Amino acid sequence: MNPDATPHADPRAGAAVKAADRAHVFHSWSAQELIDPLAVAGAEGAYFWDYDGNRYLDFTSGLVFTNIGYQHPTVVAAIQEQAAKLTTFAPAFAVDVRSEAARLIAERTPGDLDKIFFTNGGAEAVENAVRMARLHTGRPKVLSAYRSYHGGTHTAINLTGDPRRWPSDSGTAGVVHFNAPFLYRSPFYAADEAEECARALEHLEATIGFEGPATVAAIILETIPGTAGIMTPPPGYLAGVREICDRYGIVFVLDEVMAGFGRTGKWFAAEHFDVVPDLLTFAKGVNSGYVPLGGVAISAAVADTFATRPYPGGLTYSGHPLACAAAVATIGVMEDEKVVEHAAHLGATVLGPGLRELAARHPSVGEVRGTGAFWALDLVRNAETREPLVPYNASGQANAPMAAFAAACKKGGLWPFVNMNRTHVVPACNITEAEAKEGLAILDAALTVADEHTV
Amino acid sequence: MNPDATPHADPRAGAAVKAADRAHVFHSWSAQELIDPLAVAGAEGAYFWDYDGNRYLDFTSGLVFTNIGYQHPTVVAAIQEQAAKLTTFAPAFAVDVRSEAARLIAERTPGDLDKIFFTNGGAEAVENAVRMARLHTGRPKVLSAYRSYHGGTHTAINLTGDPRRWPSDSGTAGVVHFNAPFLYRSPFYAADEAEECARALEHLEATIGFEGPATVAAIILETIPGTAGIMTPPPGYLAGVREICDRYGIVFVLDEVMAGFGRTGKWFAAEHFDVVPDLLTFAKGVNSGYVPLGGVAISAAVADTFATRPYPGGLTYSGHPLACAAAVATIGVMEDEKVVEHAAHLGATVLGPGLRELAARHPSVGEVRGTGAFWALDLVRNAETREPLVPYNASGQANAPMAAFAAACKKGGLWPFVNMNRTHVVPACNITEAEAKEGLAILDAALTVADEHTV
Repeated sequence: MNPDATPHADPRAGAAVKAADRAHVFHSWSAQELIDPLAVAGAEGAYFWDYDGNRYLDFTSGLVFTNIGYQHPTVVAAIQEQAAKLTTFAPAFAVDVRSEAARLIAERTPGDLDKIFFTNGGAEAVENAVRMARLHTGRPKVLSAYRSYHGGTHTAINLTGDPRRWPSDSGTAGVVHFNAPFLYRSPFYAADEAEECARALEHLEATIGFEGPATVAAIILETIPGTAGIMTPPPGYLAGVREICDRYGIVFVLDEVMAGFGRTGKWFAAEHFDVVPDLLTFAKGVNSGYVPLGGVAISAAVADTFATRPYPGGLTYSGHPLACAAAVATIGVMEDEKVVEHAAHLGATVLGPGLRELAARHPSVGEVRGTGAFWALDLVRNAETREPLVPYNASGQANAPMAAFAAACKKGGLWPFVNMNRTHVVPACNITEAEAKEGLAILDAALTVADEHTV
Repeated sequence: MNPDATPHADPRAGAAVKAADRAHVFHSWSAQELIDPLAVAGAEGAYFWDYDGNRYLDFTSGLVFTNIGYQHPTVVAAIQEQAAKLTTFAPAFAVDVRSEAARLIAERTPGDLDKIFFTNGGAEAVENAVRMARLHTGRPKVLSAYRSYHGGTHTAINLTGDPRRWPSDSGTAGVVHFNAPFLYRSPFYAADEAEECARALEHLEATIGFEGPATVAAIILETIPGTAGIMTPPPGYLAGVREICDRYGIVFVLDEVMAGFGRTGKWFAAEHFDVVPDLLTFAKGVNSGYVPLGGVAISAAVADTFATRPYPGGLTYSGHPLACAAAVATIGVMEDEKVVEHAAHLGATVLGPGLRELAARHPSVGEVRGTGAFWALDLVRNAETREPLVPYNASGQANAPMAAFAAACKKGGLWPFVNMNRTHVVPACNITEAEAKEGLAILDAALTVADEHTV
């Protein structure tokens, strides 16, 4: 067995890894000299550990991608076998494992989304979905929601509706943002879900009217927005958007990069709402991030646009054999071990009830939202006013309450997902009930720290 | 040994792989119903083979990325070992193999390009280099060359100077195209390299003047343009661009996604010209494409801009452990087996002389250009007029001469890289002299087919 496979203290090795990191690694979304990245020594299942012998229950799944946990032996073995057979091959060829991954994905995507364009990750999937929509319709604009995240490349970051967009927004990407439904902080002053849904659809249609229906190529939405707050749309909303898209000849894109592949207790979150988009983007859970992979599932109508006219997009590693082998194995594991069903069960019987029970006892928890292994706690200074525990996009001292909450989680042995005034509960979809309950207990203790900041 | 590891005929299996591909795989840059992708059964070193028992000498290195050939056992083993240890981990942490890959790359990049931002491939590297340049300078525009390729995402495709840009060009990405030197088809009516260089620099500076020097964030160039035709810049050109960038406070980005990591007989092509850019993008050869990986090497000055101010870019798989392990192993192989030196030797003693010898005998070869394992034959209808063998961006019947040439190569057992009126000779950098000569002999025969179209 690998000596790194269990937690043990080796602080000297940890210091070396961190020093090497600080010497040469430029980190995502960070001020390079203000970060202090934890050196990770190993990971397995729902846990990872550092070089000081500290083990953490990972309630983030990395960045919500290790849906089957770390180091699943079946997928590790599949990667090793494919590496021995054919590690890489250019995209213009037919390769067995590339076809098989496409087939397994197409069988699971809703409706007639039966052609798979592979990318390296979610951002490129969104880039290509938008390109397909623009060329399919011949129209320039794309509508996306505030409170969203769609990726870090030019089009994807312009579509994003969170502060990560601000520094890179050119204002010239043909993107128009609108408000999606979010009853707890309703942009529409709605009293209930039905009203929120009706007003959100009215707002979307009005926005299309103002922008010019004949100029709108696509509407892109995360089926259930992820990093922005796990706001499950009210019944009827996505069906209503589908209907609006059909009425105006607009391509409907659902971004399931985070919500797809079991996260919500279904293969794809769209199944919860009985809606079929024209394009569906995926990444992360497709192979639990074991090898970079993403893609677009394409409807027959959109695919047909590129039947005899070249599709003007591509990438060197489209359908990378090693990444596809990891996807084939991951989907197999998810079927064999009923990971999707387990996520649904966990949400319904452990995480949902457990988080609601915490909310009842902790004044800092304003709302519990989610399904499956995909939950958010919306933390507030005051449950009546719903004032967020920290301001939108807070940093430094203004963010101290959330920083204190996160530190308490880590001290308790849980690595939390924290974004603005929220903590998300997004563990591996196959964690045991006991692991989930262990995590809830740590959250319970950490929330007392958040409670101290309520008024 | 793997039964797929040597060529053998199994046409039924091949038909099944192709049928599965056609059912569900949406291919890059293609009209989906007009393609007939070859089903690949296996690959090793400089060769791959299909299910009909045909073996091909790969003179494309995939899409110019398998710089150490297919299935190098040392890198395969490293991938298998890393898979067993820690397949994936989120980017915000320090991971040993991530740091080590960054160190090995930073040690090889020129000058003070010592911080490495990892991406999944070249397009994302370019996207992030442009973002860094814009934020570092506070300026909007980026200048790039016609006859270039920089990737498939929004910014990268807008920067590209070949027809793949046309359908996706929004005209709104703050990109201005200029002409880089190319004496054989001089945009400047120059008589020799010195004149081409001087006029190209004058043209670039004039373009900056017309656009407004204070609006230009970056100039991006492939050090030696790849897919666009392997046009080695004349002595002094890149140093001149460096000087212009310094004069106007413009960030100089060299794109070495294709030219880097040994392809030109140096670790980076910039070494040929003694020039140090502010940012250098890489991908492909960094790990021979065994696992998707790319990145940006960042100068101290640009990195400093993001010392205490967050860098607003990132991606889920930045510094993916499996990809980084493949990079560490690939760089080790290249050192141990002297792959870079071998590529230089091959270019100087076999490929260069051999291709020039072909040019002397074949009227269809207008010019031979290149270095190392990075060569282009510019095919012409007439050597005097230099009229290309097929028109720019030709397809269908207009492209028949190049299609016939490619078919002759394949019939001879060589898989050619063909782009417009050119064939590129871009085999694995570690092919043997005998393999290189085998390829030259097949090209010799195929060029007689091209010769039939000369006038």
